[in-house]
Amino acid sequence: MNGAESLVHTLLRSGVEVCFANPGTSEMHFVAALDRIPGMRCVLGLQENVVTGMADGYWRMTEKPAATLLHCGPGLANGLANLHNARRARSGIVNCVGDQATYHRPFDAPLTADTEGWARGVSHWMRTSTKAKDVGADAAAAVQAARTSPGQVATMILPSDTCWDEGGVVADPLPVPVPQAADALAIRNVARILREKKNVLILLGGKALREGAQALAWRASQATGAKLLAEGSNGRTQRGQGRLPLERVPYPADVAIKALSWVEHLVLVNAKAPVGFFAYPGMPSKHYPENAEVHVLTRFEQDAEAALRALCEELGAPAVAMPDVGPRPERARGAPTPEGLARTVAALMPENAIIADESVSFGRGFFPETFAAPKHDWLQITGGAIGCGLPLATGAAIGGGGRRVINLQADGSAMYTVQALWTQAREKLPVTTVILANRKYQILLGEYQNVGANPGRTAMDMLDLGNPDIGWVKMAEAMGVEAAQATTLDQVGDLMAQSFARPGPFLIELVI
Amino acid sequence: MNGAESLVHTLLRSGVEVCFANPGTSEMHFVAALDRIPGMRCVLGLQENVVTGMADGYWRMTEKPAATLLHCGPGLANGLANLHNARRARSGIVNCVGDQATYHRPFDAPLTADTEGWARGVSHWMRTSTKAKDVGADAAAAVQAARTSPGQVATMILPSDTCWDEGGVVADPLPVPVPQAADALAIRNVARILREKKNVLILLGGKALREGAQALAWRASQATGAKLLAEGSNGRTQRGQGRLPLERVPYPADVAIKALSWVEHLVLVNAKAPVGFFAYPGMPSKHYPENAEVHVLTRFEQDAEAALRALCEELGAPAVAMPDVGPRPERARGAPTPEGLARTVAALMPENAIIADESVSFGRGFFPETFAAPKHDWLQITGGAIGCGLPLATGAAIGGGGRRVINLQADGSAMYTVQALWTQAREKLPVTTVILANRKYQILLGEYQNVGANPGRTAMDMLDLGNPDIGWVKMAEAMGVEAAQATTLDQVGDLMAQSFARPGPFLIELVI
Repeated sequence: MNGAESLVHTLLRSGVEVCFANPGTSEMHFVAALDRIPGMRCVLGLQENVVTGMADGYWRMTEKPAATLLHCGPGLANGLANLHNARRARSGIVNCVGDQATYHRPFDAPLTADTEGWARGVSHWMRTSTKAKDVGADAAAAVQAARTSPGQVATMILPSDTCWDEGGVVADPLPVPVPQAADALAIRNVARILREKKNVLILLGGKALREGAQALAWRASQATGAKLLAEGSNGRTQRGQGRLPLERVPYPADVAIKALSWVEHLVLVNAKAPVGFFAYPGMPSKHYPENAEVHVLTRFEQDAEAALRALCEELGAPAVAMPDVGPRPERARGAPTPEGLARTVAALMPENAIIADESVSFGRGFFPETFAAPKHDWLQITGGAIGCGLPLATGAAIGGGGRRVINLQADGSAMYTVQALWTQAREKLPVTTVILANRKYQILLGEYQNVGANPGRTAMDMLDLGNPDIGWVKMAEAMGVEAAQATTLDQVGDLMAQSFARPGPFLIELVI
Repeated sequence: MNGAESLVHTLLRSGVEVCFANPGTSEMHFVAALDRIPGMRCVLGLQENVVTGMADGYWRMTEKPAATLLHCGPGLANGLANLHNARRARSGIVNCVGDQATYHRPFDAPLTADTEGWARGVSHWMRTSTKAKDVGADAAAAVQAARTSPGQVATMILPSDTCWDEGGVVADPLPVPVPQAADALAIRNVARILREKKNVLILLGGKALREGAQALAWRASQATGAKLLAEGSNGRTQRGQGRLPLERVPYPADVAIKALSWVEHLVLVNAKAPVGFFAYPGMPSKHYPENAEVHVLTRFEQDAEAALRALCEELGAPAVAMPDVGPRPERARGAPTPEGLARTVAALMPENAIIADESVSFGRGFFPETFAAPKHDWLQITGGAIGCGLPLATGAAIGGGGRRVINLQADGSAMYTVQALWTQAREKLPVTTVILANRKYQILLGEYQNVGANPGRTAMDMLDLGNPDIGWVKMAEAMGVEAAQATTLDQVGDLMAQSFARPGPFLIELVI
């Protein structure tokens, strides 16, 4: 058995079922092993940031790590931005990066690059295998790392001779550490704060945004008067009927600072105390009051639901009904508005839809309008590296077991990883992409005006996406995805309804 | 004056005239300064690997560094693959990477990433500015580094407060070191080898592939019987009538090893002794004979033309006419073949065309068929990181002063940076793209068969680009570039001729 075969057997034995791939010459033995050994679903992405973004979306829906297959340092480099987003989403991924043979590296062949240096910034775990006999054990360790709570990016670098040399040894799966329980002291402390203090905010992130944890957080909140809020950017939030109508920490610095100005005690549950996405002159980095006290109920790797349950018990908080989110919204009509689009999505989405949200500026008002939608999962861009939405939707569809994915997608960001549409077509995935075509980097125009100037010709050359307008219908059709343009909410609603009623991908260019 | 203004003034004063850009929030003060201060041409790319690849193409034609404007670590990461290619081409580039404000970085906001770690692997020079007053001086040093022979990648990381704070100081241009002359000893040694030894190969790379150096190398070769060859991958080769019909070191390992098996003395002129692009089981890493003696006439940073002139004087080599490359080829007809396409390009290209070659497997036979074309420049992918061709063509057109660019482009590689078409349309650039649509990763299918197997279903899922076929005409039209499909050499010839006769970009999908 060669190293590549030991790699595939070990990944399969450790429960890795999908490999998102863009291989090159140095990975041919890995490809051959995947071909010979049945069991792994291999999904091609036409650029590596599609590959890594798909692995992120897949984890968010399945909590199983996928493997990625990447080609040398530059192949990894192409995928770094979405690995950055995955790291911020705390997703588990096993990157398998092929590279120059161990003995060939010193010759500095053209594709030789700083693979380890590039991997380090996105990887919780990284290892370069050096011998075929170690590849299996290294793979088992990588999967263990990827599965370690809350989910980690693990990167194996595989010199080609470690794959083609004989002597591979299949490794048994390594035990995955159970998520730590919260400290008893932390639970008692937070209970005391909730009982004794006013102006308490419980900030939920990570798995505290799942259904079970939400119900417990609501119970604690109802018993004590503490308020609940979600972090600004979240990997996966369970929403809709029967779940909490949770607002998020707002994105604009001034709005966030105002929204949090009342807070005296900030309780973190798998969350981070809110700071600005960026700094602005004369604005504080922290968006919560300087004199607020911060209390950690659970760190990112700890079990939020168990901690919230223990907190409710400590508080003696009685069981309560979830809040009534009201009736399902009705479709909106007429000219596109953020609220109208959100209501239309809420009115039409199938039960258990998955929303992949890279709507950027247009989407800031989507949340309140979709509280009363059917049950759904909402996936956000977590690390701010644009180009996340299309791959995330694609991977979520692969991990979603047939659930419809609705990708609410800003046009500028869509162009970063537009190649994902091809994978949606090839894999016949149930993804409905709504391109929000404002034909500019709208968020930057807003930021530019904050700088205190109206953009002139040179600035507009860098902020405007018109001249020429991107033809999204042709773009989708070029990659095998059916598409149509809409200019009203009526049209986008009709097209969405049609798309939801049949299998496969569809793209709607909504001119806004 | 704020730091951003001192940056723009310093870049302009140092001779930087073009900024390839994809800005974000943290670069808004830089964008505002570019808007206020006239003189810089700003060119938007819709993904950063387009941005960096354009800067590479621009340098190769002008030998002036362009600035790039990139957004935080992930924006840089997206552009690393083409910076890798630029590094291998020895192109000069000044990257300006905006980043979190100095005081905001410790808060680990979502977009905070390992910017320096990612920059290091592609940068000959890197500096993170820390104060507005230093930005001008840092920029002058970056331009100096970028201009230092043979051309270097210089990366400035600019925390946003260093751009918006007042106190910017415009810096004077720093002197650019004159390329070193070759060592007199090296010239005498190589002259002795050429006079006394048989089976001598002079390997030309870098600026030794320019017209003047070629003529001198030819003179030395004619006087001594030494053979001439170009490196396998070259940033820019001057070719066509009046230049040398130089072959390259072949790509396939077995072919290269055979082609170099006769060599007893290898003389390097701005070149590297040939090694495999990749290692293969049982094949040597070096592609020249183990017992061949290697002699360095000039290192990469040294002046090849001056050294070759001194060598000719040392040898007393008489002036000779350049070899007759024969008549210009005629257009080929019928089904597409590599040779037929190359002859058709040679028959039709305008004088002083620029060829951007990312033809990968299909293009290996292009060189001999184009020796007798009109004078032209040939730009290759240098670092093996695919996705180079479209951006390279775009940047070369911007630096080419109206010269027609012909991009011979493999389809799989084209998909990596397809967004470049939009920039070609916006800037109305004279670029004719010929997509070589074999609808597979053909080079990998060849490599796969070398592994000793016929690909099964799973392997083909990762090597085949059909299912669905990419519609290149729609793809181009989606981004504002006119396009047509060709299935014969007659058709591709007609379309090329039409495209060369009028301004602006055009794309031809050649189904092969």
